[in-house]
Amino acid sequence: MPEFLRLSPPAEALQILLSALPDGERATEILDTIHALGRVLAVDLLAPHPLPEFTRSSVDGYAVCSRDTFGASESQPSYLTLLGEVRMSDIPPFTLTPGTCVLIHTGGMLPNGADAVIMMEFTQVISEGGEKEGEREKIKGVTENLLRQKEEMNLFGKKEIEISRAVAEGENVIYLGEDVRDDQIVLTAGKQIRPEDIGGCMALGIVKLRIATKPKIGIISSGDEVIPPNQHPRPGQIRDVNSYSLAALVEGAGGKPILYGIVPDSLESMKTTATKALKECNALVITAGSSVSSRDTTAEAIATLGAPGVLIHGINIRPGKPTILAVCGGKAVIGLPGNPVSALVIARLILVPIIGKLLSVTTKPQATVHAKLTVNVPSQAGREEWVSVRLISTTPAFLPKGGWLAAPVFGKSNLIFSLATADGMVYIPPDVTGISAGEMVEVVLM
Amino acid sequence: MPEFLRLSPPAEALQILLSALPDGERATEILDTIHALGRVLAVDLLAPHPLPEFTRSSVDGYAVCSRDTFGASESQPSYLTLLGEVRMSDIPPFTLTPGTCVLIHTGGMLPNGADAVIMMEFTQVISEGGEKEGEREKIKGVTENLLRQKEEMNLFGKKEIEISRAVAEGENVIYLGEDVRDDQIVLTAGKQIRPEDIGGCMALGIVKLRIATKPKIGIISSGDEVIPPNQHPRPGQIRDVNSYSLAALVEGAGGKPILYGIVPDSLESMKTTATKALKECNALVITAGSSVSSRDTTAEAIATLGAPGVLIHGINIRPGKPTILAVCGGKAVIGLPGNPVSALVIARLILVPIIGKLLSVTTKPQATVHAKLTVNVPSQAGREEWVSVRLISTTPAFLPKGGWLAAPVFGKSNLIFSLATADGMVYIPPDVTGISAGEMVEVVLM
Repeated sequence: MPEFLRLSPPAEALQILLSALPDGERATEILDTIHALGRVLAVDLLAPHPLPEFTRSSVDGYAVCSRDTFGASESQPSYLTLLGEVRMSDIPPFTLTPGTCVLIHTGGMLPNGADAVIMMEFTQVISEGGEKEGEREKIKGVTENLLRQKEEMNLFGKKEIEISRAVAEGENVIYLGEDVRDDQIVLTAGKQIRPEDIGGCMALGIVKLRIATKPKIGIISSGDEVIPPNQHPRPGQIRDVNSYSLAALVEGAGGKPILYGIVPDSLESMKTTATKALKECNALVITAGSSVSSRDTTAEAIATLGAPGVLIHGINIRPGKPTILAVCGGKAVIGLPGNPVSALVIARLILVPIIGKLLSVTTKPQATVHAKLTVNVPSQAGREEWVSVRLISTTPAFLPKGGWLAAPVFGKSNLIFSLATADGMVYIPPDVTGISAGEMVEVVLM
Repeated sequence: MPEFLRLSPPAEALQILLSALPDGERATEILDTIHALGRVLAVDLLAPHPLPEFTRSSVDGYAVCSRDTFGASESQPSYLTLLGEVRMSDIPPFTLTPGTCVLIHTGGMLPNGADAVIMMEFTQVISEGGEKEGEREKIKGVTENLLRQKEEMNLFGKKEIEISRAVAEGENVIYLGEDVRDDQIVLTAGKQIRPEDIGGCMALGIVKLRIATKPKIGIISSGDEVIPPNQHPRPGQIRDVNSYSLAALVEGAGGKPILYGIVPDSLESMKTTATKALKECNALVITAGSSVSSRDTTAEAIATLGAPGVLIHGINIRPGKPTILAVCGGKAVIGLPGNPVSALVIARLILVPIIGKLLSVTTKPQATVHAKLTVNVPSQAGREEWVSVRLISTTPAFLPKGGWLAAPVFGKSNLIFSLATADGMVYIPPDVTGISAGEMVEVVLM
């Protein structure tokens, strides 16, 4: 297996891999809606009933026949007879006839005959003697006004309400089914569940959901020099970083990481462990040890795991060039460089989309932070590059829109803490030889 | 409590609330590093030892004294005597003297006397008779080359290595402590743990972390018309949406939601439940029922919970205007509108930063998706507005940088599915009367 590789463009390499993965049935499970945050809906969700289930008011005011208000103004008000009050959680026992109105609260059910609601602010109660309230009342609290009106109704029976503005049919009304029609698809399969989706389900009484089961992602570290993190390395040894950083990445991407430990640089050991892991998991990631023989062992072992086998060996990207992408027996197998920085960068670009495919999740747009680059960053033309940056705020806290500087984190690419001190990565496309200080860049947060 | 409110600008309202919260000690706990993804580090983390712990090679090649290569070129190569090979995970038993070199692999420990590594690609093994390999070999695989070289060493003993390029002192070498110095702060208190941070901890053997305990956020829904989601509403009733959408938001923001159910529109019930919840939790959120009396009950109950009490009643924002912000006995209490859309928008803007303060988390920049607005969106000057939008891709899949259209989701603001079908929100600042179709906007993903 030569180290002089034919490098594929990263996007093309990912597409070749994803296309070679079968679309097949995915495992699903039933979950309480309240535990589904961040999980992926496995089926389209149909509304069991319309929402709202009754036509209701969206404001505090009076339910009216809109026609009765036409032409009403401050100088030429309309007068309507108050029939009573719509109580929350009751079917209103009124039917409006022309010339009447009913006190209604936000969310209250519109009585029969009403087709609009006039807001409290544009009304006055006319007291017993036909005198209306003074101007002072107009700027007093609506609630106070309302309580007083209710009190007066109780004391004096039916009242006249003065209306100083016209309302159109449907104004301040939410119709039955206006939010959701009966049998409408309210959430589509592949949606990653957010708080608003949980809220929507609750509004419809959907307290269980069919959710995509987390795909199992096997993770193998290799290299004779690699030891578990709880041991102290002898000279020449290093602790296993990749098993744990990749496991966390898998977890965050919606997969279930399964660790197969550290395999020594022996083809037989690697074949045995990889075969077992691939059988038990939906996809497999192997990080090579840093020695040439370890990298060769990984590549050779992957080649034995099944057809069609290795699709890509070498990606035109920095860091992460010596990546291997394979499909063996319908499952993705990725050989990552042992360098923990390269391994994480490539896992973000390649493994996360694979987990997405295994979940059949609807891809979300990539959100970025726009920032001004602090220094010139040279890059080799013809190769994609991802540069780690720290973000430095240029605006006071609490402002809704902040300004940011992106300061590249220098340091050799295999230093894990160069990545741990970075806030995100900046993409440098293959067709440029670098980005100048002062240019605006899009930072993908890590 | 009048409904004519003195509206505060949102950023100012948040700052007033945060400033009124005490900074006091926060609860912490010890967690296995591998379970700390997304949690917040409670203390500065010191490196127990430098990283790397030994000076090592970052490439495959030959460890050399750099001085021996000075002036070396393809036409005038240098020749060095090969002493042997650095085995991974062993201290090399060699000391380089001028004119000698040692075969070394990526990650291998630099032998005494060596100060640089020359990459395999710029070397040739000189065979027994002093003849060097043909040009053909130069484009063959390095690994193959290496294996052959190792074989030849075994067969023929010590060899001469031809060096066709000079290396500077330190080239292709990672020095002891170059990634992390002894006792250096590697992660600072307040950091939200990411996969790269877990990797960094593992590299240092830090398998436990002191983590900020999740703050308990009490959640109360109120309103006579509100029923649990698993019941079928009678006319006039609606299911409780807010308890669950807010709980999910709290969970996502790193808090621990504690639900206190649905409280009827009675001041006594609300006072009793709110007092208990505030005692048991680190902060409290109450969503008002939709009726005026329910809103009043919420406001009155909050006013009884302790000093200094209500700081803000009314925020100049749409949706979410009638929000109440209070601090009672050192704890934040938020009265949210009952409208589930307003409740979630305000909770994102106000509750999430409060949870952040309770976790003492270092605030992250807000990542956004840049998108082109599809239609004109009018807005009332003098008031902040958040408009729900769907994002529509304008570029083929798999391209690293996509183009997006932002299409506002129309519908009255209290329709929960108008929010559930949206991908994000667009901020309209108070000093404009709207945004024109075709303008670029920043979409905050939900």
